[in-house]
Amino acid sequence: MGNEKIRVLVVGAGGVGTMACVALERSGKASVTAVLRSNYEKVQRDGFEIESIDHGRSTAWRPSSVVNAVPQADPANPFDYVVVTMKNIPEVNDIPSIISPAITPGHTAIVLLQNGLYIEPPVIKAFPSNAVLSGASYIGAHERNGHVVHDDHDRMDLGVYHNPTLDAAYERRKLEEFASVYRESGVVEATVVDDIVFYRWRKVVWNGTFNPMCAITQLDSADVRRFGGEHGLIRPGMAEIVAIAAADGYDLGEGIIDEMVDITPMELCFRPSMLVDVDKGNPMEVEVILGNALRVAREKGVQTPVLDNTYRFLKLTQARLLTTRGIITVPREVPLGDFI
Amino acid sequence: MGNEKIRVLVVGAGGVGTMACVALERSGKASVTAVLRSNYEKVQRDGFEIESIDHGRSTAWRPSSVVNAVPQADPANPFDYVVVTMKNIPEVNDIPSIISPAITPGHTAIVLLQNGLYIEPPVIKAFPSNAVLSGASYIGAHERNGHVVHDDHDRMDLGVYHNPTLDAAYERRKLEEFASVYRESGVVEATVVDDIVFYRWRKVVWNGTFNPMCAITQLDSADVRRFGGEHGLIRPGMAEIVAIAAADGYDLGEGIIDEMVDITPMELCFRPSMLVDVDKGNPMEVEVILGNALRVAREKGVQTPVLDNTYRFLKLTQARLLTTRGIITVPREVPLGDFI
Repeated sequence: MGNEKIRVLVVGAGGVGTMACVALERSGKASVTAVLRSNYEKVQRDGFEIESIDHGRSTAWRPSSVVNAVPQADPANPFDYVVVTMKNIPEVNDIPSIISPAITPGHTAIVLLQNGLYIEPPVIKAFPSNAVLSGASYIGAHERNGHVVHDDHDRMDLGVYHNPTLDAAYERRKLEEFASVYRESGVVEATVVDDIVFYRWRKVVWNGTFNPMCAITQLDSADVRRFGGEHGLIRPGMAEIVAIAAADGYDLGEGIIDEMVDITPMELCFRPSMLVDVDKGNPMEVEVILGNALRVAREKGVQTPVLDNTYRFLKLTQARLLTTRGIITVPREVPLGDFI
Repeated sequence: MGNEKIRVLVVGAGGVGTMACVALERSGKASVTAVLRSNYEKVQRDGFEIESIDHGRSTAWRPSSVVNAVPQADPANPFDYVVVTMKNIPEVNDIPSIISPAITPGHTAIVLLQNGLYIEPPVIKAFPSNAVLSGASYIGAHERNGHVVHDDHDRMDLGVYHNPTLDAAYERRKLEEFASVYRESGVVEATVVDDIVFYRWRKVVWNGTFNPMCAITQLDSADVRRFGGEHGLIRPGMAEIVAIAAADGYDLGEGIIDEMVDITPMELCFRPSMLVDVDKGNPMEVEVILGNALRVAREKGVQTPVLDNTYRFLKLTQARLLTTRGIITVPREVPLGDFI
């Protein structure tokens, strides 16, 4: 890496995306263009107002550039990295189509800082000559109309999701470069890992259980535990995810379920992202979190009675959210089969 | 039965209760006292306004007597029948305690026109010298502050729930008397049946599936079907209820599932009672409908994975409704076991 800054496009500047912009800009080694949607006008005019546990307080903060649509790549100045932090809802948006204009084949590395499991293959399929990096983020950050509250340390595990047509050494260099720029400010953690899928499975143990159980029941995670859901739904669901991961070649370790239950706050009302979506009437990340885990279960022949049923209730809840928003219309006919 | 009218107390004058009052009064053979709660002042002042598919339109209609609490039985003039049409929610109210003041031992027959399964044993236990009649009602009637819309024919199956300490012939006479008075107006149907439990199981095939599935997902019954719930949840859940009934000695017949699915309206938004409860923030009849069916399943060793999970989600939804209403408080500790 020379003196020239790397050029980064960040698509989706909610809490995670904005704090990625901040970390990258503060490195002094990246020039960031942020693609904003609902908050574009506000941020264009006033900048972001940020209260960050890692970076302190900022007002009128802006990345190098702010745009309201994914820009066409400039052949003379291609993006080195396109960081995707949008919500990933295949029923609503197709990530490859959205980022496509900004991707320069053979050059741009794509960094998926999104929830879920096996979200990388569709991206590799769409961009077969581009490296794909994949991150499991543990940040706590919420954005509302340009105001960001970042209250849990920016920490992520970051790895290559190997593209079989690319040289692994090239992918690794992109990974190391991006991670080193990301953590350059010295206050955030971006840990390079060899197999990101392991970390995504770990995260799905929590996200694939507490998220749907809270969204379906509209109870926060502590109330789900206290009202009998911990032993009735959460732990059995987690055990099924651990079994699917094992069949997929990932041993998550003996203590994983206790660990994941224990990190669930009991002293405050924590409303997981899917429940926040229900609260706001927004669609949820059903398919990338629970749907993809269950597709692996089917493929590997793992029985998942608790999660199958949870998925059915979650899909119906999602259908309600999507129809209320007018994103889908009610089918005229009753479908013949199950949706699993 | 002589010329003297039978004395009937109706506890709970929602849609079902008010139309029972109308049918009984219109027989000319019953004098009805209605116990009202939320609508007492309104009805006391203005009477009921009724639009009935069976009885036509009435304004300022009142039964013989309207009271706002269950009256103490008058030893000289005991109630011949106490008809219970209240919602049956053991977490919230105890039916035997509520009706107790009006029951004269050895005299008053108790008529349970309520949803659910095996709701009779607690009543027999509390009133060992009283006959218990049990009805599965198929009426469609909704009441709101004294205004009743009765849009589906008043039809019920009515039987004795045998109290082992009583003479079966005596119980049968009470059944025949009540049914004959009830249908005396000639416009309603009260069919005397030998085994009411069979009819309650039949009703639970629908109520134990569509009701919870709609309440949990907040979709009406047609949308649950159209969005994939029919084959994913409803039919598998119905098959489990049919299996529990079979283990309990009741063969519901081969076509029961198709029949129950087919009676579900597709052309209108039908919101089953539990969903109406969720809409209004009221507690639901979880235990008498689904809970009791699952307790039979456990007792008979029937596996019910779909309904077990449904019950867990329903119990958490119920916990949300009960805490929001302030009826229960959140437990301080996480319970150790499942709630099934």
